[in-house]
Amino acid sequence: MPPPEPAVDAPAYREAMARIASAVHLVTTDGPGGRAGFTATAVCSVSDSPPTLLVCLNRSASAYPAFRANDAVCVNTLSSEQRPVAEAFGGALPRSERFGNARWETLATGAPTLPGALAVFDCRVVERSAVGTHEILLCEVVALALRPEDVGSGASLLYAARRYRTLPPTDGTGSD
Amino acid sequence: MPPPEPAVDAPAYREAMARIASAVHLVTTDGPGGRAGFTATAVCSVSDSPPTLLVCLNRSASAYPAFRANDAVCVNTLSSEQRPVAEAFGGALPRSERFGNARWETLATGAPTLPGALAVFDCRVVERSAVGTHEILLCEVVALALRPEDVGSGASLLYAARRYRTLPPTDGTGSD
Repeated sequence: MPPPEPAVDAPAYREAMARIASAVHLVTTDGPGGRAGFTATAVCSVSDSPPTLLVCLNRSASAYPAFRANDAVCVNTLSSEQRPVAEAFGGALPRSERFGNARWETLATGAPTLPGALAVFDCRVVERSAVGTHEILLCEVVALALRPEDVGSGASLLYAARRYRTLPPTDGTGSD
Repeated sequence: MPPPEPAVDAPAYREAMARIASAVHLVTTDGPGGRAGFTATAVCSVSDSPPTLLVCLNRSASAYPAFRANDAVCVNTLSSEQRPVAEAFGGALPRSERFGNARWETLATGAPTLPGALAVFDCRVVERSAVGTHEILLCEVVALALRPEDVGSGASLLYAARRYRTLPPTDGTGSD
């Protein structure tokens, strides 16, 4: 007997999800499985004790095998000037070329970090669970970096209704 | 022997998390544990097959016992006009008074939904896991509602740097 049909189909669900505006993160890894990264909106804070966040990753993504093999994961929350990085890692650029267009550093785990990101969360994966097409990586934060004050707090890069948008750092006119 | 100290302390983690702009959701429940709700940013999409999202909930929140007892959970993604609802459920208003200031409907599960929300995801909890101070509710989406086109797609209510903000539905001037 086939499983019961879900009451909500995937296209309708994706359309509703497109209504949710989100910050944009570049999630990277390095280790035995090699260096890889992908552009993500499905990142969320879980607890501050211990500092823990989660990342959802499609198991069919080209970056997945590296994330499966490595336990170092870095979440780089992108500023509006970093949109080209988001596009390079979210698009069709071959995996080997994606890291060529930016300068990279590392913090504690060795996963690549982006100077100029609004915030950088360097993490170790502490648990993994498969849900449907995706894997949820539960990540404990072992090091942080914040964009320096003298660079300003920076405008946030957002993704909403399938387009990139900008949220200025302070109230004012002109958001896009 | 005490556990090793985390390399990142909770205040530093919260400061970094405040750099991440997020949509604002009212998450509600109803059932044997009674009606309850809370304002959340820690909501994220997991998979579209089957349609699944997750919600992180502080186990010390006043709404937690109701969410622990019930399996109906509704995520209402708020428009900028619904900021008073976000404030009512995010603030110090007693639990019994929080539902008094808006009109409520239901979809499939009986959890309260907010007409005018940008999107409404009516869900059944399919799995729970405790992580530090919080519980992660894995929720399968069983019904959806989208704000009608004739009301416009609506401006998104955002929360960034510990303040409410607005993201207009289309590019233009005047974001806040």
